[in-house]
Amino acid sequence: MATKVGKYTIRLDSTPSVLSYAAVVAKKEGEGPLASYFDTVSEDSTFAQQSWEKAESKMQKDAVSLALTKASLSPDQVDCIFAGDLLNQCISSTFGLREFGIPYFGIYGACSTMAEGIALGSLMIEGCALKHTAAVTSSHFCTAERQYRFPLEYGGQRPPTAQWTVTGSGAVILGENVSPPYVRQVCIGCIEDKGIKDANNMGAAMAPAAAATIRRFFEDTKTDQNNYDLILTGDLGQVGSDLLYELLFRDGYDIKAKHSDCGLLVYDREKQDVHAGGSGCGCSASVLCSYILPSIKDGRLQNVLFIATGALLSPTSAQQGESIPGIAHLVHLSSNPK
Amino acid sequence: MATKVGKYTIRLDSTPSVLSYAAVVAKKEGEGPLASYFDTVSEDSTFAQQSWEKAESKMQKDAVSLALTKASLSPDQVDCIFAGDLLNQCISSTFGLREFGIPYFGIYGACSTMAEGIALGSLMIEGCALKHTAAVTSSHFCTAERQYRFPLEYGGQRPPTAQWTVTGSGAVILGENVSPPYVRQVCIGCIEDKGIKDANNMGAAMAPAAAATIRRFFEDTKTDQNNYDLILTGDLGQVGSDLLYELLFRDGYDIKAKHSDCGLLVYDREKQDVHAGGSGCGCSASVLCSYILPSIKDGRLQNVLFIATGALLSPTSAQQGESIPGIAHLVHLSSNPK
Repeated sequence: MATKVGKYTIRLDSTPSVLSYAAVVAKKEGEGPLASYFDTVSEDSTFAQQSWEKAESKMQKDAVSLALTKASLSPDQVDCIFAGDLLNQCISSTFGLREFGIPYFGIYGACSTMAEGIALGSLMIEGCALKHTAAVTSSHFCTAERQYRFPLEYGGQRPPTAQWTVTGSGAVILGENVSPPYVRQVCIGCIEDKGIKDANNMGAAMAPAAAATIRRFFEDTKTDQNNYDLILTGDLGQVGSDLLYELLFRDGYDIKAKHSDCGLLVYDREKQDVHAGGSGCGCSASVLCSYILPSIKDGRLQNVLFIATGALLSPTSAQQGESIPGIAHLVHLSSNPK
Repeated sequence: MATKVGKYTIRLDSTPSVLSYAAVVAKKEGEGPLASYFDTVSEDSTFAQQSWEKAESKMQKDAVSLALTKASLSPDQVDCIFAGDLLNQCISSTFGLREFGIPYFGIYGACSTMAEGIALGSLMIEGCALKHTAAVTSSHFCTAERQYRFPLEYGGQRPPTAQWTVTGSGAVILGENVSPPYVRQVCIGCIEDKGIKDANNMGAAMAPAAAATIRRFFEDTKTDQNNYDLILTGDLGQVGSDLLYELLFRDGYDIKAKHSDCGLLVYDREKQDVHAGGSGCGCSASVLCSYILPSIKDGRLQNVLFIATGALLSPTSAQQGESIPGIAHLVHLSSNPK
């Protein structure tokens, strides 16, 4: 049975397991420092599909298929899947998953989607009588650029604060407690809005949300950075990470030595021309499902806070002069059930 | 503790309550047959905002505020809210709800959003140690037309199968079992795709999903239409409702005498020029939260199946030649806890 801890955190007393996981990426991600950890690296960013949108759907389909195979489960053994992505009306998820016939909850958390999906999926195992659930998300550089910014052919200049959308997908299968990694706690994020309006500086828009969620989780659980091996944010990049340190330092938490960001891990910023780092739903999902979860599984990392952050804008809201609210959901993953 | 019933259905043994509800609509809805049931009817479809998108956000904000007031709750007493809408990146929800500071799960189910939100919100009460949750969604004729079809100024002809997007919002507050209406069961929908490609015939695209979810729920629970007072779909309209009868009749269920559709209830089709009926996330949400829930509360309706249906398309997927998948989630609402 779940237990509410403080105002924002839920402890999962049965500590559901991450039964399996898979990460699918494209060429640029396969040229980065995590190349050897991904399950699939496609040389072709269209994944042999007729459009980038269909390519993104294909990544989700492949990631879920791989994760199911690793867990020795068929789609009809999965009670429900939580899925979403950045594209209008979440079409990567719809078209990527329609053939599985798995009961489907569409979610939208922008780049916080992976943490939202794992949170809801593990809560369904914890308290709602489900045996297996799944979570998946994705992003694609080419679909995101043309939807949010400019057609690629335009060749627009990118400012130093801009981030590079990861072409990738990550999927997890969750189930009852059998082996690590375990999902021990989740902290639900609130919408935070500090008035940032620069759509080329997502790190700044999302850092306040990450800071708020981490602070609330520390307060709810009466812990701090010293209780965890790794505090892993989703895609703050360099600008957002620096802001996160500053915001939390003001609250009395010095997380820098324990912090890492999926957007900084996924590319080699010296060689890969990605400016402030990687971003996109697929950034945190593919890094978590390749480089991080195995380390928790074998105990090299014992307690990890995974905080995926999302910027809740649309081109319409930006054109209408709105600021960019952010949100961050936190999942406490552990190699130990208690 | 929740109990899995068959493959798709979850029984909520503690039968969470719908503590309060509110519905906010605009002028056209206020001229329809349900006028007297809505909490707020605005003569001005901009709700005194500078854009239709901001108007839609305002409706969500007002609906949640009204529902909170009726439940005598402040925002900080709500453990989490499930919200989403039809607009790109769900901006109606983000900007409508950002000031409340309520832990926020963004969801995307197109016009099935209200059923998805009530399902997840009541499951969180049932098994995940939360005391109060909320669900809200909205749609706006003017935001939907310009995003999905044509600018209003274009004055395009609408075919007879087209539906009219409701300008409205509905919100519910859910909590532990205290009084009716109770949420007794939920049935999670799967993505269904029968190859329909006509974006002016959403009823046809969504009817197969409604039929599949209703059939699975009947099979899981070993019940049929005779066990319920009302089988209420979200926004199938006339075309989709007729298809639903036909599809379920083939499976041995004759639901016509028990069926109603929010899209057919909300407007007077003889006088209001809405073609096949109402549609949009706000259609089922505003009808449920005005006309239906009070009838369950006072026992005039004892057992209602609320099945909101969503068409999971985007203009991009349509332009790329994709069909329109549908999804339907079911919530069993009752005046009796057992």
